[in-house]
Amino acid sequence: MSSTRDIDALIDLMSRLPGLGPRSARRAVLHLIRKRALLLTPLADMMQTVAATARECLNCGNVGTSDICDICTSAKRANGEICVVEDVADLWAMERSGVFKGRYHVLGGTLSALDAIGPQELRIPRLIDRVASENISEVILALNATIDGQTTAHYIADQLDGQVRLTSLAQGVPIGGELDYLDDGTITAAMRARKSI
Amino acid sequence: MSSTRDIDALIDLMSRLPGLGPRSARRAVLHLIRKRALLLTPLADMMQTVAATARECLNCGNVGTSDICDICTSAKRANGEICVVEDVADLWAMERSGVFKGRYHVLGGTLSALDAIGPQELRIPRLIDRVASENISEVILALNATIDGQTTAHYIADQLDGQVRLTSLAQGVPIGGELDYLDDGTITAAMRARKSI
Repeated sequence: MSSTRDIDALIDLMSRLPGLGPRSARRAVLHLIRKRALLLTPLADMMQTVAATARECLNCGNVGTSDICDICTSAKRANGEICVVEDVADLWAMERSGVFKGRYHVLGGTLSALDAIGPQELRIPRLIDRVASENISEVILALNATIDGQTTAHYIADQLDGQVRLTSLAQGVPIGGELDYLDDGTITAAMRARKSI
Repeated sequence: MSSTRDIDALIDLMSRLPGLGPRSARRAVLHLIRKRALLLTPLADMMQTVAATARECLNCGNVGTSDICDICTSAKRANGEICVVEDVADLWAMERSGVFKGRYHVLGGTLSALDAIGPQELRIPRLIDRVASENISEVILALNATIDGQTTAHYIADQLDGQVRLTSLAQGVPIGGELDYLDDGTITAAMRARKSI
């Protein structure tokens, strides 16, 4: 099917997105072709725009459309708190909750001896610079509760020890969580950190 | 976050694709921004190309880049057989199997009294024209084995009765299928159509 080469190429590109396989990429492309004016053209235009303008914040690693992101430039967010996250997706999750009013630092991953990822690969030196220069009172380590995440948190805590107040997210039963479905580690952590009512 | 407006707009557009919700759209957009040169720019370009060139074949309803699709223009495919399918996705599935060497007719859906979809909405009149004009010997009704699909097949069979040989796909146990997991209807159909070895 030579003249459908472009459509096949589009399916191939779409199937490289996370969460889309060949079958769902075909479905998505058919949907796009059917909704050409409403969806395909606006999506193509917006992708061009984002491809031309998106960049990483030089200060914190957040994704935005300027060299220094909105959060880093906003005076309102300069409350002396830095929340350290692994990934931009984690930063977005924190922002959706709306609970944190300070600034962020996106590591870009976790330390991993197996994958040869050391502090230099992770924007950790930049974090240490920021703590020294930005008048920071508290660093909140909001890393994932995985082995790699916790290893990275310990390393950062060692590096910043004594310079600043260090905290991490509380561990316990998630809202709506049922004890029966929780792992033993979570129940143990929740029990140890129990609060009086 | 005003300067990330474009990124938010891209996430919103991506989340309208079938199979992607808000969470997977965010993941896909982050992936696209990370792989800007390798994936985002080529994808945006290919979407522009497809948006500009994709169209439905005026003869059979297949999706391609010309007014009459490659299958309808290919002399090799003029073997007197038309395979009637509901959807372009079904046509693609038939083509991947490689078993059918004739031409197609894409209905664009199934008859549905509830949704007020009658024969005029479905490219059924065009099928009847083609059978009369294209020297067709056999019409294969490859509609889905759903109630709506079978209702539509019956309607088309009524319309074409006596003009042409009418067949439908065999029903039975799928390759690799386990009896224990099949529904009663499939087992009944497979038993009734049993073959001597």
